Amino acid sequence: MFTHNRVCRLFDISYPVIQAGMVWCSGWKLASAVSNAGGLGLIGAGSMYPDVLQSHIRKCRQATKSPFGVNVPLLYPDIDKIMNIIADEGVKIVFTSAGNPAIWTGWLKERGVTVVHVVPNVKLAVKCADRGVDAVVCEGFEAGGHNGKDEITTMVLVPQVADAVGHRIPVIAAGGIGDGRGMAAALALGADGVQVGSRFAVTLESSAHEAFKQRVVQADDTETILTLKQLTPVRMLKNPFYEEIQRAEQQGAGVEALRNVLGRGRSKKGIFEGDLDQGELEIGQVSGLIRTIPDAASVLQDMIEQFQSTTRRVAGLSG
Amino acid sequence: MFTHNRVCRLFDISYPVIQAGMVWCSGWKLASAVSNAGGLGLIGAGSMYPDVLQSHIRKCRQATKSPFGVNVPLLYPDIDKIMNIIADEGVKIVFTSAGNPAIWTGWLKERGVTVVHVVPNVKLAVKCADRGVDAVVCEGFEAGGHNGKDEITTMVLVPQVADAVGHRIPVIAAGGIGDGRGMAAALALGADGVQVGSRFAVTLESSAHEAFKQRVVQADDTETILTLKQLTPVRMLKNPFYEEIQRAEQQGAGVEALRNVLGRGRSKKGIFEGDLDQGELEIGQVSGLIRTIPDAASVLQDMIEQFQSTTRRVAGLSG
Repeated sequence: MFTHNRVCRLFDISYPVIQAGMVWCSGWKLASAVSNAGGLGLIGAGSMYPDVLQSHIRKCRQATKSPFGVNVPLLYPDIDKIMNIIADEGVKIVFTSAGNPAIWTGWLKERGVTVVHVVPNVKLAVKCADRGVDAVVCEGFEAGGHNGKDEITTMVLVPQVADAVGHRIPVIAAGGIGDGRGMAAALALGADGVQVGSRFAVTLESSAHEAFKQRVVQADDTETILTLKQLTPVRMLKNPFYEEIQRAEQQGAGVEALRNVLGRGRSKKGIFEGDLDQGELEIGQVSGLIRTIPDAASVLQDMIEQFQSTTRRVAGLSG
Repeated sequence: MFTHNRVCRLFDISYPVIQAGMVWCSGWKLASAVSNAGGLGLIGAGSMYPDVLQSHIRKCRQATKSPFGVNVPLLYPDIDKIMNIIADEGVKIVFTSAGNPAIWTGWLKERGVTVVHVVPNVKLAVKCADRGVDAVVCEGFEAGGHNGKDEITTMVLVPQVADAVGHRIPVIAAGGIGDGRGMAAALALGADGVQVGSRFAVTLESSAHEAFKQRVVQADDTETILTLKQLTPVRMLKNPFYEEIQRAEQQGAGVEALRNVLGRGRSKKGIFEGDLDQGELEIGQVSGLIRTIPDAASVLQDMIEQFQSTTRRVAGLSG
């Protein structure tokens, strides 16, 4: 299966499914579970101090013999320390996001690292290809957590990025993909693989709090929103904390006032500590499709089986 | 082809592709061209006085022997007159949008009309099925023109609507579909057919101004925005008129102030008269994929051919 798939070849994995690096969800347990099941697990460095990341990398290597990677938001304050740990620990796959791909790509590739960058539009995808990035993740408006300012959805972003850089590097679709139908749609649109966040955030191996997982399971299609657009846009579930942001914005709050409302540690409070009222509940729009809390291997297996049945079904439609 | 497709059977058409009713674009010329090519053309009543609509219906019937329909925004001021003309002229397919499906569905169905309603979320889709609507169009955030307040994208809306009502009525996907890859993606997500707006707005038979069509052809992926959210959200190209809205909003303009900025006749000015600075240039996010101004039959033929090649390609991926 997927023998000629460029994403599978690039990472030496069985299925072109990447588990997104997500703050407070994707430590070594989730990453190793996905990698052991034949996908690519990513440790999310965004919520980790450097020593915590080092520990997660080591535990992940103990837990799987398969390839795994680390996701690094480039706005991270300790970025130099993080990158040195990644190199010193011999991590071979790094996904970077939220920043300029030109800054770290050369440094990482000199150290034998495969570099993937997350992009919200065509222009940055082309820049990535020009700068030697090995693949791009194009992430749509529907994705959870931090998001681009262009608000381009997966449906329209993927074919445009595929047309622009697909002849040079593999294209990975992200945003709104929670089952095998979404995977089939992404590959129809021209992606070589998919990056899946929310669906893996709500698994047994995710380090998110049980209350957060249950809240996502209960969410319907209308319950997330992309907000804090004056700071860094972020998609979250609407809750009392969001309502506080909304009130401040309606009263004309500027950047500083919004920073005060946001405060510090909100995503930890919401996702990791399970404070559903005062925490920031980052999750994608696809949460409306999430109804169960299975293990990560089951998510991957179900997705591949549904991908296969879907592609057979669609191929038969015009027959 | 598509012999068992529910959308093709419902409308008695060859391909499950509906040309969206669009203000200032979709008169009898475009609708009859799409219907003659094997899709379903819709006359967009939203920009027509009752007598103009009557004339378009009669000309459309002269121009095609195939089924066609009329799209009616239910907020239309002359709605009673419009509905009576539709019934008197013997139109057999009506797509309603922007309103409550309960109000007109029964009246139309008593007169032998097939009724389809456009929905932005799962709840309204279920209400439509309960009220006897024959099919729903679920329209994503990426769609051009007027849009829902929930900002749910096609990628996540389609599978949720398919799960909720697909066992009762056909589901048609709209928003972000501009080629055969988008069509294949929509059908993979669980839709029975697609409604395509922007791609048909930029064809030879569209009544939009040549300058508007050329402007869309030049647009890149980042150039549309969903704005005027305090009134009725609408997606348009960013231009000096949009910048005026943006300035007003940044200065805290309320509903009345925004109504003054909007004024009257903006979409006619932009789309029909080709005033690219002061007009409202309604178009979908998929405009970044639109690079040509072909005839409508070519759009449909290319879409079906690319749908077939795409579904074959994707079905072969996991082999």
